[in-house]
Amino acid sequence: LPLVQPGDDLGALLVAALRAGGVTPRADDVLVVAQKVVSKAENQFVALRDVVPSGRAQAVAETTLKDPRLVEVILWDTAQIIRAVPHVLIVQHRLGFISANAGIDHSNVAPPEEEQVLRLPTDPDASARRLQADMAAAFAAAPAVLIIDSHGRPWRQGTVGVAIGVAGMVPLQDLRGTPDLFGVPLQATDVGFADQIAAAASLLMGQAAEGCPAVLLRGLPYERTDSAAAADVLRPPERDLFR
Amino acid sequence: LPLVQPGDDLGALLVAALRAGGVTPRADDVLVVAQKVVSKAENQFVALRDVVPSGRAQAVAETTLKDPRLVEVILWDTAQIIRAVPHVLIVQHRLGFISANAGIDHSNVAPPEEEQVLRLPTDPDASARRLQADMAAAFAAAPAVLIIDSHGRPWRQGTVGVAIGVAGMVPLQDLRGTPDLFGVPLQATDVGFADQIAAAASLLMGQAAEGCPAVLLRGLPYERTDSAAAADVLRPPERDLFR
Repeated sequence: LPLVQPGDDLGALLVAALRAGGVTPRADDVLVVAQKVVSKAENQFVALRDVVPSGRAQAVAETTLKDPRLVEVILWDTAQIIRAVPHVLIVQHRLGFISANAGIDHSNVAPPEEEQVLRLPTDPDASARRLQADMAAAFAAAPAVLIIDSHGRPWRQGTVGVAIGVAGMVPLQDLRGTPDLFGVPLQATDVGFADQIAAAASLLMGQAAEGCPAVLLRGLPYERTDSAAAADVLRPPERDLFR
Repeated sequence: LPLVQPGDDLGALLVAALRAGGVTPRADDVLVVAQKVVSKAENQFVALRDVVPSGRAQAVAETTLKDPRLVEVILWDTAQIIRAVPHVLIVQHRLGFISANAGIDHSNVAPPEEEQVLRLPTDPDASARRLQADMAAAFAAAPAVLIIDSHGRPWRQGTVGVAIGVAGMVPLQDLRGTPDLFGVPLQATDVGFADQIAAAASLLMGQAAEGCPAVLLRGLPYERTDSAAAADVLRPPERDLFR
């Protein structure tokens, strides 16, 4: 892909890149797209110089030793602060998931003197559905679409890819009742299927630059649906012991 | 692979399977092996009928509504109980990582009337190094080796593959200082590299049965080392806000 700019038609860019590569998506493929290029195309840029931090943002910035203007932007997308300590601000995003800095990004976003940061897409599931529709229009076959980001984790170091937008795929694989090797039904096995695809695609995309912001995955059977949502993967608060 | 039995030479089985498939591992491949077959070959089986639960195990079993004999086996491998509530027992394993039930498994382990459970390998890094040596002896090229398990996660539903044993690969990719698209050095980006490989391999292995307990990954550049340890990925307690 070329460097994606605000207002670009990301679907058209992806179609052109696939055609240039001689690749025709199939209905059982999965198109995995990095959140960053979706956000850029949707112009989720915010120039910190235009941001006036609220009193609350200033207080949280004092606790976390972060730029109060950045904290203000983080709070725009925050449903609940989960942890705020020096250099760490972990929040529940208004979309439901929990991550550092509400997914606000300032690497690979713009030249540093512009002080730009990048928010997540407003509705990543809707963004995924639009890209799926773009594929269907161009190729007569609509693969599932995942929009992925990298999240840190409790207990383990290192970010891993996770799905924040889903179209066309059941993101959680429910194996309850599936017989094991000895015929005994599995009792409580949900597999983070879409997140594992996100992690696999993230390996191929790399992390340092924007060289490869989309991956087309072929050959992995999955359960299709027209009513997927990334929030289906989120653990309900009453079943979450770690908030 | 055939069904792995206690005492089997897992390295020899893997060598035979690779040869049967006409595949010669290369030094820059990664061999990913499911923990379950390693544990079976190393005879980590425990028959619950032989287990006498301690008073502590009985108390924890009462809280978690689990079989006191199973809790006893879990406690053998537990450094610290992290959460114990009805139907959930999350512990720090003596190997350092945090997961449900200390990784003790009772699906796909043995016919149910035998009441067998399966503990993790005693030292998964050492198991990975042995398999790497077996590859080197058979093929004159030693790929990196990961031993993987599936762990649940706070905040998100669904298990994902993670590396619990590592040989030959730096499991955490440190991108600090790498320039971004605009030449600005990245500040705090560690990538859970081995865990993302584990997730990718887990997709291919599936979860319900033991059909495909090993995956050979080719074409992904990684940093080699002779002193890897899965514990390198663990977040130090003082940098972990969620215990």
